[in-house]
Amino acid sequence: MKAGYLQFKPEFCDPDANIDRIKRLVKGKEFDLLVLPELANSGYLFSSFDELSKTSEELPEGKFCKALQELSIDHNGYIVSGICEKRGGKYYNSSILVSPEGKISIYRKTHLFSDEKKWFAPGDTGFSVCDIIDKGKSVKVGMMICYDWIYPESARTLALKGAQIICHPSNLVMPYCQRAMFTRAIENRVFTITANRTGKETNGGNELNFTGGSVIVDPKGNYLHSGSIEGDECIIVELDPAEALNKSITPNNKIFQDRRTDMYSL
Amino acid sequence: MKAGYLQFKPEFCDPDANIDRIKRLVKGKEFDLLVLPELANSGYLFSSFDELSKTSEELPEGKFCKALQELSIDHNGYIVSGICEKRGGKYYNSSILVSPEGKISIYRKTHLFSDEKKWFAPGDTGFSVCDIIDKGKSVKVGMMICYDWIYPESARTLALKGAQIICHPSNLVMPYCQRAMFTRAIENRVFTITANRTGKETNGGNELNFTGGSVIVDPKGNYLHSGSIEGDECIIVELDPAEALNKSITPNNKIFQDRRTDMYSL
Repeated sequence: MKAGYLQFKPEFCDPDANIDRIKRLVKGKEFDLLVLPELANSGYLFSSFDELSKTSEELPEGKFCKALQELSIDHNGYIVSGICEKRGGKYYNSSILVSPEGKISIYRKTHLFSDEKKWFAPGDTGFSVCDIIDKGKSVKVGMMICYDWIYPESARTLALKGAQIICHPSNLVMPYCQRAMFTRAIENRVFTITANRTGKETNGGNELNFTGGSVIVDPKGNYLHSGSIEGDECIIVELDPAEALNKSITPNNKIFQDRRTDMYSL
Repeated sequence: MKAGYLQFKPEFCDPDANIDRIKRLVKGKEFDLLVLPELANSGYLFSSFDELSKTSEELPEGKFCKALQELSIDHNGYIVSGICEKRGGKYYNSSILVSPEGKISIYRKTHLFSDEKKWFAPGDTGFSVCDIIDKGKSVKVGMMICYDWIYPESARTLALKGAQIICHPSNLVMPYCQRAMFTRAIENRVFTITANRTGKETNGGNELNFTGGSVIVDPKGNYLHSGSIEGDECIIVELDPAEALNKSITPNNKIFQDRRTDMYSL
């Protein structure tokens, strides 16, 4: 299976420019599953609800979602992307999985980071897995967004629900996640694809630097790819999602069967 | 607070030699909390219950425990050590916390690794925290043993119960844990002290190489010390356990208050 990420710097409040950029970067690439950064339509550093209103969209009819659906069909591959979603008078920091068959699935970020709490409603979807089809076989894919990573419960919940690949659109500003993703991969024996953005944003007297360095990790904790800190890139690697079905750490240790839930605090 | 670890190569089935070694390595060291490796009285690679019977001990009356109690009093500091425990016809891969006031607390390993399942009963204590006294103030300390690390629920449960320092006696043979401990520290905002053993054991046609490289990590994920791969060492660092009471990642994010347990699968 050809899976990977697109790393770029979204233009703030300019979905059209971002659609063009994505199309240009993906051109000629073959993929079965491609992960884009968090809030790939809108950029990140909001200073007013007016900005959110202008750049967010309803799903599935919004233009960013529609453009991804066309890309998905053109490339005959699934696309996961962060998206600034508007729904019922609220805004969500969401992620969509768009399929070449025309379906979309929505995940809304569970753990909001810092000032996101000002702008977005807490996600109400919870963590769920979707089936995608690769060479006639079903592969289970889950989504989490950026800061969700620091809660081991996020990846754990997805993995317990059967996720083989965790798609992780991100706008990372702290320096930990890329180094920590091998822990998420190995403790759950899953693939993880963290698609981070790059660049700096300034708005309303605030400034944020995003850390790039997107990573793809396999179920044994190997980094299949570590991206550049700056610069656009579309990286696709070959991976076998069936490896994530093998939960054996040793012949005597299956990672989920050995869990002792009666001893854990929730 | 002066806290750290003792890394060494236990002699297989020779508690007396191990007591002597520990005494020699600790001589002249000042510490408030010292962590020793897993199964520090017995060594690791058993091939018969006869070996277990000879080397294990009942608590608190066993000679290894008594020797640690004397050391604890002599140094006026707390000691955590892995210990091969015998109790009610069963053997446990346990850890004890020995205090200069003469108390001992026992933790029995929850997640048994590989052939440990042949020899040891699964731990029946669960994860709990103990109060130790540092300069008149109470500090909460938790214990987990070696392979427990790969289950994020182990450190999470201890941290939710208030642990500020997680003491982690280990006999690591896989290459992941030392790199992963910063994830455990940062996701819980606690200190972790992984005391690993070194050296090779061969027995009954089997061989194991232990990876040394003990680590001390602070609540922000910084490695306060990374030990040598081979060789004995007793490393003590200065740390402020109150740092582990600060669970703020950003002014808007307190790591435990932001948990959304209704969205997590146990």
